[in-house]
Amino acid sequence: MQQLSSKIVNKAVASFSSLPGIGEKTALRLVLHLLRKDKEDIVSFASSIEQLLDLHYCSKCYNLSDTDICEICANPNRDEAKICVVEDLLDVIAIENTTQFNGYYHVLGGVISPIDGIGPNDLRINELIERIENSNTEEVIMALSTTLEGDTTNFYLYKKLKNYPVKISTIARGVGIGDEINYTDEVTLGKSIVNRIPFEKTL
Amino acid sequence: MQQLSSKIVNKAVASFSSLPGIGEKTALRLVLHLLRKDKEDIVSFASSIEQLLDLHYCSKCYNLSDTDICEICANPNRDEAKICVVEDLLDVIAIENTTQFNGYYHVLGGVISPIDGIGPNDLRINELIERIENSNTEEVIMALSTTLEGDTTNFYLYKKLKNYPVKISTIARGVGIGDEINYTDEVTLGKSIVNRIPFEKTL
Repeated sequence: MQQLSSKIVNKAVASFSSLPGIGEKTALRLVLHLLRKDKEDIVSFASSIEQLLDLHYCSKCYNLSDTDICEICANPNRDEAKICVVEDLLDVIAIENTTQFNGYYHVLGGVISPIDGIGPNDLRINELIERIENSNTEEVIMALSTTLEGDTTNFYLYKKLKNYPVKISTIARGVGIGDEINYTDEVTLGKSIVNRIPFEKTL
Repeated sequence: MQQLSSKIVNKAVASFSSLPGIGEKTALRLVLHLLRKDKEDIVSFASSIEQLLDLHYCSKCYNLSDTDICEICANPNRDEAKICVVEDLLDVIAIENTTQFNGYYHVLGGVISPIDGIGPNDLRINELIERIENSNTEEVIMALSTTLEGDTTNFYLYKKLKNYPVKISTIARGVGIGDEINYTDEVTLGKSIVNRIPFEKTL
């Protein structure tokens, strides 16, 4: 669409527009914005991207990390009895932001999704089992999305783990805090009635 | 907002979220997308940004260029009698895309806007006069935005150029192609009546 004689600009535009949600016009706008910045800012932008190559997966929980063991796994003050199984690092961030969980994580790297060609062997399930075998884990908390794929993965993990001496739990599904009952979809509302909890627990 | 233990990821997120229209959450999504790409793609993304430092302004028209003289100015098949004055390189692209102009450009680098602290001396107006003095220019076509600032700049340029032996014109303002008369604002519609053109010209 854009007819630009500069190959350098075109290359930068192509880079930005390869990102999700950024079209050619937006990409050009971003490049022009960068061009108006100081030389140092452009160098630092480029190097911050190149440094992404230095990232590792934590060798314990498979969260992204600057070091071999991530900051969470390296923290000895957390509760080693609990492992929270999540899909990816965004979920780690989301749960950390609640400050309600003090155990360790295990990042599966996705959920079972035959339609996307992702089977159990593409996920870090064997690594999870190994961790459970070689640690003092008492509870595995499954915090996967409440989608078909998430539920399939939950069930697969449950079958794999049920013979180990660990408690297997899943995060509560129910009516969201601040939601109105008459606007809640019937599946969620139905589950929230079936899985009702003692009122004292909400105090 | 995001609590991420990786300094590397945080730095890349900060880079992206320094761009206009990209918040922290979007920036993180873009970084995670990059991380899923091949090593070569990340290197090429970073280098495409670093190469922006190699860009010049064309020493004739002040368009962005990979070389000292931009591709348009280096093309001898264009009509040297016409110079089209534009605000920035986006306008060059827009006019080039119409394929209706075969002369050369002059990129002012902005318009006169006292509120933003941009005066005539911040624009490449003297360079334009120098070009007109030292070339066979016959017509200067002003293609600035039809805003207060654009009109001010048009008028300033007109006063500066009127004593040179060049025709000074401005792009037509009027009802857009495909627009309905009764939805056109009255200023535009008024101008389009005052500046009506011989019907034969529209054929």
